[in-house]
Amino acid sequence: MLAGIPPATIGASIAEIDTPALVLDLDAFERNVATMTTAVRGSGARLRPHAKSHKCPEIAKRQIKAGAIGICCQKVSEAEAFVDAGIRDVLVTNEIVGAAKVRRLAHLARRARIAVCVDDARNVAELSAAANEAGVVIDALVEINVGANRCGVEPGEPALALVRAIKAAPFLRYAGIHAYQGSAQHLRAVADRRAAIDRASAAARKTKELLAHYRIPCETITGAGTGSFMFEAASDVYNELQPGSYIFMDADYNANAWDGFPRFEQSLFVFTSVMSTPTRDRIVVDAGLKASSTDSGLPVVTGWPGLEYTKASDEHGVVRVADTARLPALGEQLRLIPGHCDPTVNLYDWMVCVRKERVEAVWPISARGAVR
Amino acid sequence: MLAGIPPATIGASIAEIDTPALVLDLDAFERNVATMTTAVRGSGARLRPHAKSHKCPEIAKRQIKAGAIGICCQKVSEAEAFVDAGIRDVLVTNEIVGAAKVRRLAHLARRARIAVCVDDARNVAELSAAANEAGVVIDALVEINVGANRCGVEPGEPALALVRAIKAAPFLRYAGIHAYQGSAQHLRAVADRRAAIDRASAAARKTKELLAHYRIPCETITGAGTGSFMFEAASDVYNELQPGSYIFMDADYNANAWDGFPRFEQSLFVFTSVMSTPTRDRIVVDAGLKASSTDSGLPVVTGWPGLEYTKASDEHGVVRVADTARLPALGEQLRLIPGHCDPTVNLYDWMVCVRKERVEAVWPISARGAVR
Repeated sequence: MLAGIPPATIGASIAEIDTPALVLDLDAFERNVATMTTAVRGSGARLRPHAKSHKCPEIAKRQIKAGAIGICCQKVSEAEAFVDAGIRDVLVTNEIVGAAKVRRLAHLARRARIAVCVDDARNVAELSAAANEAGVVIDALVEINVGANRCGVEPGEPALALVRAIKAAPFLRYAGIHAYQGSAQHLRAVADRRAAIDRASAAARKTKELLAHYRIPCETITGAGTGSFMFEAASDVYNELQPGSYIFMDADYNANAWDGFPRFEQSLFVFTSVMSTPTRDRIVVDAGLKASSTDSGLPVVTGWPGLEYTKASDEHGVVRVADTARLPALGEQLRLIPGHCDPTVNLYDWMVCVRKERVEAVWPISARGAVR
Repeated sequence: MLAGIPPATIGASIAEIDTPALVLDLDAFERNVATMTTAVRGSGARLRPHAKSHKCPEIAKRQIKAGAIGICCQKVSEAEAFVDAGIRDVLVTNEIVGAAKVRRLAHLARRARIAVCVDDARNVAELSAAANEAGVVIDALVEINVGANRCGVEPGEPALALVRAIKAAPFLRYAGIHAYQGSAQHLRAVADRRAAIDRASAAARKTKELLAHYRIPCETITGAGTGSFMFEAASDVYNELQPGSYIFMDADYNANAWDGFPRFEQSLFVFTSVMSTPTRDRIVVDAGLKASSTDSGLPVVTGWPGLEYTKASDEHGVVRVADTARLPALGEQLRLIPGHCDPTVNLYDWMVCVRKERVEAVWPISARGAVR
C-alpha cells in the first residue's frame, strides 16, 4: 500500500515531495545535536537521548556518534526495533509488566545491554525469573516519583525497600535511580522549570543519601527532558540525561521561555498542500489530525506571515488568511510546525531529510506504531 | 519490527491479547451494520459508508455484503488500498489536487469506478487532463458548503458554474453534488443536529432546483455522518449517505443525545494493561496518546465502575480510582472506549476481532497511515 512508499525520492527538489509528509531539515537537526553535545559537556552528566521522539535508528546512530552513550525507549517493541538496527545500549524508561512482555525484554538482553525501570516488588520478581529463563542479567533502576505523579515509588524509604528487592533478585543488577520530572518540561517560565527540577533533585538526593547510609551506591541517577535538562545537568545528583525532542522541537516547546539557555531550532516539519481556496480569508490544506498530532495544540504555519492553522479534522486543516497576507495558490506547498513532535512522528513511516532545498535521504521510522 | 506482528493469535483467549491493542467486538459490530441497514431501508437513500473510520478492507467487504453500494475515502492512497483489496466503487469525498495525485487517481479509475469531489475550476481541468492521459473517465461531484465552512463552493450559482465546467471537461462525467455537513455531527442535542441538516438540505435543494431549471439532473446528492444520517435520509434531497463511525462508535459520539433514533453499540476498544499501581487512588496503564487519540477527548474506561482515565502522555495513561472501586491489580487488563475512533484506528496495524471472549480473527488495517 502507498503508506509503505516514501513520499519523495533522493535528489528530488522539495517542491516534489508528496504531501502530507514528515520532513527533517538536516542542517538544523545537525546543529541541534551539536548544541546539546556542547550544552552537557563539562556537566559530568552523560547523554542518553530518548528515542520515543524519533523512533528512527538513523537518528539514534547519529546521536551516539556525537557522544551519546545509548538511547532510551518507552516500550519493549521500540527497544526491539532499535536493537534490530544495531543499537547496543537501551534503557527502557518505563515499567514492563506481564509474562509475555518481560520474556521479550529478557530475550533482548541477549543482544544488547538492557536496563528497565521498576516501581513494584512483584515486577522485580517476574523480571528476575524471565532473565533467569533467558540466561541473562537485566539492569534494573528504581523509578521514584519526583513530582509528576505518574509511575514510581516515593523517594526515601519506599525506594530503599525496592532497591533491596532488586539486590536480592538473582538475575537483576541494581543499576540506579530513574527520576524523571515529566510535568516540568512545559512549564513556560524558566524559573518554574528550575523550581520543579530543584524539588526533583532534592528528592533524588534524599534517596541517594539514604542509600549511601546503607552503603548502597547510586551508579546512575537518570532523568531530564528537553525543557529542563540544563537544571538536571547543573544539579549535583543527576549523572544521566534523557532529552528527546531537542533534535526536532515543536510548537509546544517553542512556546517555552528559554532565557539565556541554548535554544534549539525547529528542524521537523509537516509539508502540506493547499487543496481548496474557498474564500479570501480561508484555505484548506491536506494535513489534518492524522498528519499532525493535536494533543498539545494545533500545528503552526511557518514561513508565511498572516496564515493561521485554526481547525483540524481527520484529513483537513483549515487555515485563516489575514487581509494582509498573500493568498496561497491551489496546490501550493506550506510548512507546518507540529504541535507535539513525538505523536506526530508516530503517524509516519518515513522521514524525508532535506538540505538546501533537495531531498538528501529518506529514513524509515522503524519503531512507528511500536506501542507494545 | 513488532509493529508488524499481530498482538494476538486466532483462537486465543482475550486475556492473552498483548496490549495496547485495538479490539473489535464482532457481535456488536455486526449488530451495528444490521442496525444501519434497517435504519436506511425505505428512505430511498443508498448507503456508501466512509472507510476513513476503519481503513480495513475486511470491514468494507462486510458493509457491501450487507447492502452498501461502495465506500467513501478521503485520500488517493486510501482509495488505492481498498481497490487493491478488491473494492470496485469508491467515492473520494475530498478534493484531489496536484499533478502527481490526480495522475494516481486517474490510474485507479482503470480498475474501479472512481468518483471525486471538486470545488475549483482549475482542479476540473487537471483532473480531466489526467483522465485523458490514463484513458479513463472520472466521475466528478461538485462539493458545496452546507455550513461546515471547510471546502466547497457556495450553493446555487457558484455550484452551477462548476457543474458547467465539469460538463464541459471531456474526460469527466458530472455525477452530482457532495453536501456533507461535518460540523453538525457532534452537536449534542438531536434538535440542533436536525436544524443544521435542515439548513444543509435547503442549500442542497436550492442548488438542485437551480440545476433543474437548466435541465441538469442531480444523479446523486451525497452527505451525512453517524450523528445526522437520519435527517439526511428523511430529507427529500439526499439519496446517498456516508456515515462511517456507526460501526465502532466512540466516546464523542456516545456523548450525543439519540432520543428515539437507533443507537449504535460501542464495538471498538483499546485493550490496555495496568503497569503501575503507585497509590490507592491512582493507577497507570500502558495506553497513552500513541494508543488512543485524544483530539476529541480522553478515552473512557468501560466495564469497571469508579475508574476514570484522567491524563494521557505519550505511552502512559493515568487512571483515577474512586474509593468505592475495586483496585485493579498490576498487569490486569482494562478496556478503553477511544475518544475518537478514526484517528485511533489510524494508530494501529491490526484489528483484533473477538467474539465470546475468544480471538476470532485479526484483520490488517491496510490503509493505516495512508494520508497522501
